[in-house]
Amino acid sequence: MPTISKKGQQMPASPIRKLVPYAEEAVKNGKNIYYLNIGQPDIKTPKIALQAVKDSDIDVLAYSRSEGSEIYRQKISTYYSKHNINVTHDDIVVTTGGSEALLFAFGSIMDVDDEIIIPEPFYANYNGFSTASGVKVVPVISKIEDNFALPPIEAFEELITPKTKAILICNPGNPTGYLYSKEEIKKLAAIVKKHDLFLIADEVYREFVYDGNTHYSVMQETGLEDHAIMIDSVSKRYSMCGARIGCLVSKNKTLMQTVLKFAQARLSPPTLAQIASEAALDTPQSYFDAVSEEYVERRNTLISELQKIDGVKVAKPKGAFYCIAELPVKNSDDFAQWLLENFDVNGETIMVAPAGGFYSTPGVGLNQIRIAYVLKKESLIKAVNILKEALKVYNN
Amino acid sequence: MPTISKKGQQMPASPIRKLVPYAEEAVKNGKNIYYLNIGQPDIKTPKIALQAVKDSDIDVLAYSRSEGSEIYRQKISTYYSKHNINVTHDDIVVTTGGSEALLFAFGSIMDVDDEIIIPEPFYANYNGFSTASGVKVVPVISKIEDNFALPPIEAFEELITPKTKAILICNPGNPTGYLYSKEEIKKLAAIVKKHDLFLIADEVYREFVYDGNTHYSVMQETGLEDHAIMIDSVSKRYSMCGARIGCLVSKNKTLMQTVLKFAQARLSPPTLAQIASEAALDTPQSYFDAVSEEYVERRNTLISELQKIDGVKVAKPKGAFYCIAELPVKNSDDFAQWLLENFDVNGETIMVAPAGGFYSTPGVGLNQIRIAYVLKKESLIKAVNILKEALKVYNN
Ligand SMILES: Cc1ncc(COP(=O)(O)O)c(C=O)c1O
Ligand SMILES: Cc1ncc(COP(=O)(O)O)c(C=O)c1O
Repeated sequence: MPTISKKGQQMPASPIRKLVPYAEEAVKNGKNIYYLNIGQPDIKTPKIALQAVKDSDIDVLAYSRSEGSEIYRQKISTYYSKHNINVTHDDIVVTTGGSEALLFAFGSIMDVDDEIIIPEPFYANYNGFSTASGVKVVPVISKIEDNFALPPIEAFEELITPKTKAILICNPGNPTGYLYSKEEIKKLAAIVKKHDLFLIADEVYREFVYDGNTHYSVMQETGLEDHAIMIDSVSKRYSMCGARIGCLVSKNKTLMQTVLKFAQARLSPPTLAQIASEAALDTPQSYFDAVSEEYVERRNTLISELQKIDGVKVAKPKGAFYCIAELPVKNSDDFAQWLLENFDVNGETIMVAPAGGFYSTPGVGLNQIRIAYVLKKESLIKAVNILKEALKVYNN
Repeated sequence: MPTISKKGQQMPASPIRKLVPYAEEAVKNGKNIYYLNIGQPDIKTPKIALQAVKDSDIDVLAYSRSEGSEIYRQKISTYYSKHNINVTHDDIVVTTGGSEALLFAFGSIMDVDDEIIIPEPFYANYNGFSTASGVKVVPVISKIEDNFALPPIEAFEELITPKTKAILICNPGNPTGYLYSKEEIKKLAAIVKKHDLFLIADEVYREFVYDGNTHYSVMQETGLEDHAIMIDSVSKRYSMCGARIGCLVSKNKTLMQTVLKFAQARLSPPTLAQIASEAALDTPQSYFDAVSEEYVERRNTLISELQKIDGVKVAKPKGAFYCIAELPVKNSDDFAQWLLENFDVNGETIMVAPAGGFYSTPGVGLNQIRIAYVLKKESLIKAVNILKEALKVYNN
């Protein structure tokens, strides 16, 4: 029997997907599930995007350019300029989702055994991409008590070794909903410049910023041109996760030439989805306003309902559509599975993401879950009620 | 300035794309180019596939399952059964092109410094995927004199070391057009079983087999269940390269669980393209017959025209839509660039792929080019005439 690779063995199973078999079993048994586990919004994709695909008169569904179609990249740069980010189409490589942009970034700047510092809790698949690239994640802990603010700069500097190649942040954050301030970005800029590191900012939730806050991109920070790598995606912005279109943006020419080589090897990003994504750029502001209003309501509902439960701690998210909740349980993996297998309120239960997978420090976050508020307000209220009742039963 | 990774520096520039700037310049200067350099067919995509996307009534363009939609995988397995390949949907993971299937296969079975044996010349991006994975390609030479037949088994056995994890073949072959016989597959099966290796077969050109020959898949070989990994793609079969849908097929359960973890990390393959690919499975046989007839004519034209040129050697392809031609030049990189920059016949020139990039043994193949016969017969005749005239001028 031929053997699997070490990294294949070490690849983490997705914490969001490993409960799926239990959920499928529950559904088979007639249970209704509120899915709070994945970042798949229920928001409608802008019609304009889907219609563009229907209107296209393609004869031969051909490869696009490896770096993405020129016109699409030009239009993205116009979109960025509206967000005070000044880049040209040459600074952009279109990718198959933000996921591939992350893989290209990791591949372009890190070799096996290199290290990347990431504030945790972090998007679980950073672990997967790191394992796939043979790279070591060095976590720096951000705490629920501090609302997941940027850890002190000294905490970063203590972790930097000759093998450190980059700091990776997610802004606004999945799973924390944390939004970095301009000052925090400036602090990070100072460290990466001092130590000659890349600063990768995953900004796929840029539009999801609430309470009148503004998003400050790493691409806005002058003097950071050689260091900043931005990861972006249409998945959440236009609720078109299935398109699989994202991009990698940087003004570092050597980096971009390297990224292009990775892009060429896999030929091209999806053509139909680029048509949809290009059209999506014309989505009116009213769409985003409505979406934002909807998420703020959901968030407010979710947080206030959660806060009513004894022993539950929660940080109020300023962006994205997730929150981390600390529960009065020892092991949220076990609790999440139990919810699917053994619990219901009138035939209904919830599916949540155990937060352990969002940490790389062993043992941390085991009493936390991530909740994605991608459901309507009424459903969220019912879902939190199920959580409340479940905790009573589970803890006896 | 932060540094690029070693593997990023080593990533090969695509041999098919590095001449693009010269071609763009030539076009700007008013030259007409016959593109013989890339495997982008001019054949029309089946209407049924494109129409399915237009007919879909999607509200939310959501992620699909990481392994691909269940119904699509079921239909693929039905398609395979028509080709005497017995697999279930559980043996299939849908990928973003055959490209991603190759990356998942490499990641799942090889770690840094592991070795993979590949008969050369081979699909150039195998080099890119190997570099990206930190894997060493160990080439075994197949010769134009032998029509690129499988090298003797001893040649493989001599190259196997404790680090060897797999043998990779492309059947039918890009760039050679070679079609492996059942006997050759059986020989490879015996080696991989003896040495506990994987046998990866890239079969994306399965349908492109000419002259009444039949394709024998590694998935048809009994006893090879734990060893065989098949790479597939809709790109060439339905002339829908821009869809970016492929798949990885294997009956090795441990392997498939590992592949799934890589698939989960990147979330899902493109949703719109899966709709098109699912519909494409209903393409009538008459489409393939017509395509095959067209390619046979093109091939026959190309080969007979090439054979008329003094000093040109060419192996007759039995499948796919490429051929390797040996030219009376020292350096085909130089020649290919010169064709774009300095040569034309009545304002027309050709773009070819220098074959050096299809070899990993340094210095081999430098007097060869790869020609993709993805153009109409009349264009091929003109193109070969340009080549003939060019060789006269270039060699003076
Ligand atoms: C923080 C973050 N980055 C990247 C991604 C990748 O998204 P995609 O590949 O769909 O663009 C996600 C998806 O959930 C995410 O939450
Ligand atoms: C031999 C071979 N394998 C794999 C691929 C990858 O194709 P895709 O990623 O479009 O499926 C190609 C494309 O030209 C090819 O020629």
